[in-house]
Amino acid sequence: MKTKSLRGRDFITVLEFSKEELDTILRLAEQLKLEKAAGKRHPLLVEKTLFLLFYNRSLRTRNSFECGMTQLGGHANYLDSEKVYTPAVAGEEVAFVTERVADVARVLSSMGDGIAIRIFGDPVGWYYGRGNEYLREFARWATVPVINMEDDMYHPCQAMADMLTLREKWGDVAGRKIVVSWAYSPSMKKPVSVPHSMMAIASYFGMHIVFARPKGFELDPAIIEKVKANVAKHGGSFEETDSMEEAFRDADAVYPKCWPSLEYLPPRVPKPDFESMKKLFDANRHWICDERMMKLAKPDCLYMHCLPCDRGFEVTDAVIDGPNSVVFDQAENRMHAQKAIMALTMR
Amino acid sequence: MKTKSLRGRDFITVLEFSKEELDTILRLAEQLKLEKAAGKRHPLLVEKTLFLLFYNRSLRTRNSFECGMTQLGGHANYLDSEKVYTPAVAGEEVAFVTERVADVARVLSSMGDGIAIRIFGDPVGWYYGRGNEYLREFARWATVPVINMEDDMYHPCQAMADMLTLREKWGDVAGRKIVVSWAYSPSMKKPVSVPHSMMAIASYFGMHIVFARPKGFELDPAIIEKVKANVAKHGGSFEETDSMEEAFRDADAVYPKCWPSLEYLPPRVPKPDFESMKKLFDANRHWICDERMMKLAKPDCLYMHCLPCDRGFEVTDAVIDGPNSVVFDQAENRMHAQKAIMALTMR
Amino acid sequence: MKTKSLRGRDFITVLEFSKEELDTILRLAEQLKLEKAAGKRHPLLVEKTLFLLFYNRSLRTRNSFECGMTQLGGHANYLDSEKVYTPAVAGEEVAFVTERVADVARVLSSMGDGIAIRIFGDPVGWYYGRGNEYLREFARWATVPVINMEDDMYHPCQAMADMLTLREKWGDVAGRKIVVSWAYSPSMKKPVSVPHSMMAIASYFGMHIVFARPKGFELDPAIIEKVKANVAKHGGSFEETDSMEEAFRDADAVYPKCWPSLEYLPPRVPKPDFESMKKLFDANRHWICDERMMKLAKPDCLYMHCLPCDRGFEVTDAVIDGPNSVVFDQAENRMHAQKAIMALTMR
Repeated sequence: MKTKSLRGRDFITVLEFSKEELDTILRLAEQLKLEKAAGKRHPLLVEKTLFLLFYNRSLRTRNSFECGMTQLGGHANYLDSEKVYTPAVAGEEVAFVTERVADVARVLSSMGDGIAIRIFGDPVGWYYGRGNEYLREFARWATVPVINMEDDMYHPCQAMADMLTLREKWGDVAGRKIVVSWAYSPSMKKPVSVPHSMMAIASYFGMHIVFARPKGFELDPAIIEKVKANVAKHGGSFEETDSMEEAFRDADAVYPKCWPSLEYLPPRVPKPDFESMKKLFDANRHWICDERMMKLAKPDCLYMHCLPCDRGFEVTDAVIDGPNSVVFDQAENRMHAQKAIMALTMR
Repeated sequence: MKTKSLRGRDFITVLEFSKEELDTILRLAEQLKLEKAAGKRHPLLVEKTLFLLFYNRSLRTRNSFECGMTQLGGHANYLDSEKVYTPAVAGEEVAFVTERVADVARVLSSMGDGIAIRIFGDPVGWYYGRGNEYLREFARWATVPVINMEDDMYHPCQAMADMLTLREKWGDVAGRKIVVSWAYSPSMKKPVSVPHSMMAIASYFGMHIVFARPKGFELDPAIIEKVKANVAKHGGSFEETDSMEEAFRDADAVYPKCWPSLEYLPPRVPKPDFESMKKLFDANRHWICDERMMKLAKPDCLYMHCLPCDRGFEVTDAVIDGPNSVVFDQAENRMHAQKAIMALTMR
Repeated sequence: MKTKSLRGRDFITVLEFSKEELDTILRLAEQLKLEKAAGKRHPLLVEKTLFLLFYNRSLRTRNSFECGMTQLGGHANYLDSEKVYTPAVAGEEVAFVTERVADVARVLSSMGDGIAIRIFGDPVGWYYGRGNEYLREFARWATVPVINMEDDMYHPCQAMADMLTLREKWGDVAGRKIVVSWAYSPSMKKPVSVPHSMMAIASYFGMHIVFARPKGFELDPAIIEKVKANVAKHGGSFEETDSMEEAFRDADAVYPKCWPSLEYLPPRVPKPDFESMKKLFDANRHWICDERMMKLAKPDCLYMHCLPCDRGFEVTDAVIDGPNSVVFDQAENRMHAQKAIMALTMR
């Protein structure tokens, strides 16, 4: 177990943590979940405050953090970005409208005990990586941990919840085949953070990762490189394919989900081109997770999704409501995983 | 006392509870109110979370639940409906905008300990009963209690606060005459939940209920039937009249309040017809609770209103600010009644 | 020490308190700050509720009160004015849109333990004093303390935080020269509460107050009179000048800040005249706190600002980010000062 190294740390991507540190968090999450079920209190962050700064709306994320902090004896301040002075980086201020991130981060640090932020898409003009830069700027100035509630690159809390779910179902995840696959939805405006983060966390624990996507939906090569490096170090394998069918064959778990094409977003193009992107989407409407697809996988193959899900497009009701769907375990485990992250970093 | 049967129950209408159960809730409410006044702590829901899902704005309801949960040692998450994915029933989803009620209810259930909902009017297109259906759908999927913070049929928490107030003033309410009366306001957009719920709760405790309204403002016949059945079982009486004057004569308590005409709302008409409704309203401008009206009642007749009140229309300042007005008792008792409801259902 | 006289008191302006009472609050603030740093809990307002009623947005104020209440064991209900029935004074109601202040204040008083309000500028039509009247109306009806989170006349919590900061830096503040100065910003829409309140608190503790502003930016003569009366009673001095340079000479602390001209706001003119005011602003663009100005003051002269600050206008980055800037101490001390105010008035 690695515990002391977690104290005071920012939690922006799992890729900055060691396998032992991530394992420590997961073990505490399991313990807290059991304690809660047994009615055992664990007031680990009594009277402490976590700020929740949302630039995008949320149901699961907000409530899992709020409930989690309440269960730990503290409180989460929900801060709607419209109701605070919009933090701006140096050089982009507007008098009495924006306030410099450096100032906001230092002020909040002096009052509370952690800052959690969600930012991607519209608030950063769909410029890939800008949301993450924004978190990094906060982390640079804050003297308390900054927790990523989903930016345009990473969703590390989701990744921890997902791995917690797999461990609950299987015990050891090593040697299991997981498919992270693109799926069609009429809504293109989602981040790529979830597939990145699922592959990142899987790469620490000896899983066989198969990444399936139509041509044009490749992900960030820098992150793929890190996933490959992890696999080389910790065991397992990584494979990329443009065949959903091939990927699903004999899978132990599938995670089919829609994301946009980075090829039509800045910095690769000067401005977001959703019109061209739509054509690419329309050409791949058949990427849906239905019962026919699930038959290709192992009989007890787990169906995963971070929710909210576009039913009828990404997945059929029969699959998501079926016996192998673990989507509600994943959602619940958001809270347990985050409680462990908070308890270890914010104490 | 009936206590075990309340654990885990939804609180959507008082009509689904027995007299003994309702009496148990009221007795606990009285006890919690006294304890609070004496500075005695009662941390009955420590570190528990109640979700407050508001589709309509609120002052009393929100704050009575928030303060109440704080006093019980827990926390209420105020969820503005604009800030979450709007829950939609199956078949009405819009990708990445709505999320199915079944999914929202199950996710929230896995994190917190109760779900309170307010929904009526505009959010359900003024289709009478749709708000209640929405709550029923939530209750169907949630594994924690669903509490009605006012839908288009019922306002059971208000009913409990109102009965608590009457018991405080009178001790036994049996044999007392209560008038639930329509009153004019230029604002037609209110629910019919309060008169329904006041008559419902009164029907359990042997009261003489007089229901006064101009022609066209009759209420839901199914609910009136249940009120009559309760009266037949528990004693008291029920009478309906179109004369405010006759109703007020010798009353022990009056509850004059504006509500819309169900005759101009769906499902009785294809879409809400507020233009025709306005004519009916204008023809009944004289239904106001003033000192002249109060003189018809008993000298110490209580004046009741759930607030907010349209002063100068529904009631004159002299009456609502007069010595027999109990409106602030009713408002305060919202909190005490709800604490009892939460403590008994969410433990 | 004066402690009993503070219980149940409204905190609307420091000018209504004695020197001994203000000193008591500051001493408790220092103690709570130290205790917090040492990890010592002080649950002085367990399960109590403070309502935060905001008509203007906020970052520091909201979070300092929310974190402060959490640290004291209670909870602050953040109430966005758009989400409640807008309280209106008698005679200005709109049915089902507004609710009379008298009613709101009495209802909230019956549920919680304190009401904090921020209101100035647009919500009161920039009519100087209307925001304060609104707080006074609340205080008239509330049976719990009303705390001013900034109105159009006073910002007493900021004043307490500022004095706490000066005491931390200097120990005794008597005999020190403080400059409260106007500074230019392209944004005219700010209240005059901060300069009023800084001079008010300084006038109790023997400071030499120099008030610098261009012609046209004079402040409320009634408040200036009270400041002079305090100085006559408690020692120190008061001087008014239209030269920023002269004011800064040998200063121990400077507080340069933008505020609007009261000459172009009601009641002095029928309606706000920001067009004419802009000319006055433009003619005084050179009122900026830069390193050249700071050289006139003592070498270790403190730079103060309540934040948010219009960088590049009111002050240069070099000054606000320099070694003598205490702006983040001031921000942090908001929380500690307010905890002391709440603990003494709301217990």
